[in-house]
Amino acid sequence: MNSFVDMTALLARCRPSVGRVFLVGAGPGEPDLLTLRAARLLARADVLVYDHLVGDGVLELVNTHAERIYVGKERSNHSMAQAEINALLVQHARLGRQVVRLKGGDPFVFGRGGEELQALAAEGIPFEVVPGVTAACGVASYAGIPLTHRDYAQSCLFVTGHLKDGSCDLDWHALARPRQTVVIYMGLGGLAGICAQLVAHGAPASLPAAVVQQGTTLDQRVVCGTLADLAARVAQAGLRSPCLIIVGEVVRLHDQLAWFGTQAATRVAPAGETVALDAQFGA
Amino acid sequence: MNSFVDMTALLARCRPSVGRVFLVGAGPGEPDLLTLRAARLLARADVLVYDHLVGDGVLELVNTHAERIYVGKERSNHSMAQAEINALLVQHARLGRQVVRLKGGDPFVFGRGGEELQALAAEGIPFEVVPGVTAACGVASYAGIPLTHRDYAQSCLFVTGHLKDGSCDLDWHALARPRQTVVIYMGLGGLAGICAQLVAHGAPASLPAAVVQQGTTLDQRVVCGTLADLAARVAQAGLRSPCLIIVGEVVRLHDQLAWFGTQAATRVAPAGETVALDAQFGA
Repeated sequence: MNSFVDMTALLARCRPSVGRVFLVGAGPGEPDLLTLRAARLLARADVLVYDHLVGDGVLELVNTHAERIYVGKERSNHSMAQAEINALLVQHARLGRQVVRLKGGDPFVFGRGGEELQALAAEGIPFEVVPGVTAACGVASYAGIPLTHRDYAQSCLFVTGHLKDGSCDLDWHALARPRQTVVIYMGLGGLAGICAQLVAHGAPASLPAAVVQQGTTLDQRVVCGTLADLAARVAQAGLRSPCLIIVGEVVRLHDQLAWFGTQAATRVAPAGETVALDAQFGA
Repeated sequence: MNSFVDMTALLARCRPSVGRVFLVGAGPGEPDLLTLRAARLLARADVLVYDHLVGDGVLELVNTHAERIYVGKERSNHSMAQAEINALLVQHARLGRQVVRLKGGDPFVFGRGGEELQALAAEGIPFEVVPGVTAACGVASYAGIPLTHRDYAQSCLFVTGHLKDGSCDLDWHALARPRQTVVIYMGLGGLAGICAQLVAHGAPASLPAAVVQQGTTLDQRVVCGTLADLAARVAQAGLRSPCLIIVGEVVRLHDQLAWFGTQAATRVAPAGETVALDAQFGA
């Protein structure tokens, strides 16, 4: 009898033959806004495949043994094509690994999560989805701007300012309707055009609007104005991506409801005690 | 010297003179979808003020010493008026307490969170907002229906089917536009009317739509159809509130991407190990 142990074969028997891909929302930036489920999955992942919108604080929660694969898309020359990302997920799952595919915000809101799951389904790879706090909700909460309010907005509309072909050809009639809040993801580059188009399609030039840079993080900055002057104010303030644009009467409430960085805000430390948050910035 | 200790005065000196209200999103139902921050705040709250949409599993995470005040609104005769809720929050904060105001989903999406914060701001009570996974995101993730998808929907619109005056007078032209996903909160009672109005305003009768009951929980049920037949299918299936309605081409993806209750789904136990989820129901 051969006493030589084939470790590879042994490992293959210990692992399930096919792993699983968890499509996980990382939330808006602040690590404390991860879900419990997301945090637990990060703590036991074999492989992490993540985008550039995932904050550093979130990455600190990933177990140190996990293989980390960055597939960020902020610079086209360094990014991985979607087909390559899909193939990567399939390949690691086939090796029996627990793969966490981590995306900023919620994976089903402008995250192309659906496309990745279609690729997994076509290959018979099991998957699960863990929703996250989408950027609109996280940023609005930390900016003190309710997305709906019975006096101002009965609905909210999320759109992306960055389309497949690089254009910004939005449904302007839909965006210019009254009594709603419009949140534009990834629209900073086209801000002046967006404001002008909204006014050209019937929105009042006096309609309040805001741009929030890196909402929920210590680098959060909020610039409020109207469709007429927001682009100039934002340029003057020098805001940088990632930013979210919020358009609607609810923006008026920011003056009254801003709390993050304006009050003596608290931060709940992991051990449970409350420590003062160093609020170095104004809203 | 009087050795008698005035405990009330001593306690008053130990506590801050004014407490703080945390407006916290409880997420869509599954307790594992709470944020880390929400879970920590529940673990140390002095007072919990909560609605009927907050799940039992979430309430189990509240520390046992907290005073729990139910202000649910499902039955008008047993509900507390909004003005009373506002006064309650102010009163407990003035006693130096850490008050968690817990709402289902995200507190700034159809939660009337903004109104409560305005009342606090008017009284000078400090507050913070903790965003949650809004029902649309949570339910869509667990139903395998991406809210956006480059081939089907470039935007998503959240509306409520239950308005201030009890009517359902929605902006039907906005809801009937193509290439978007519409999510209707609290619309089950008006489902037949909603589908009919969408078709009357130009949406194709063949447009896919779904109703999801108690999404993310073990009682989740998904019924898919078209605007023409969804109401009849839902009536036949006997779905009960709370439900979310999702309308749009993305609903087609449910057949391919449904995972919760259909695969051998996993549940991450608190200790970190993976246990099989008892999937008793079909999607």
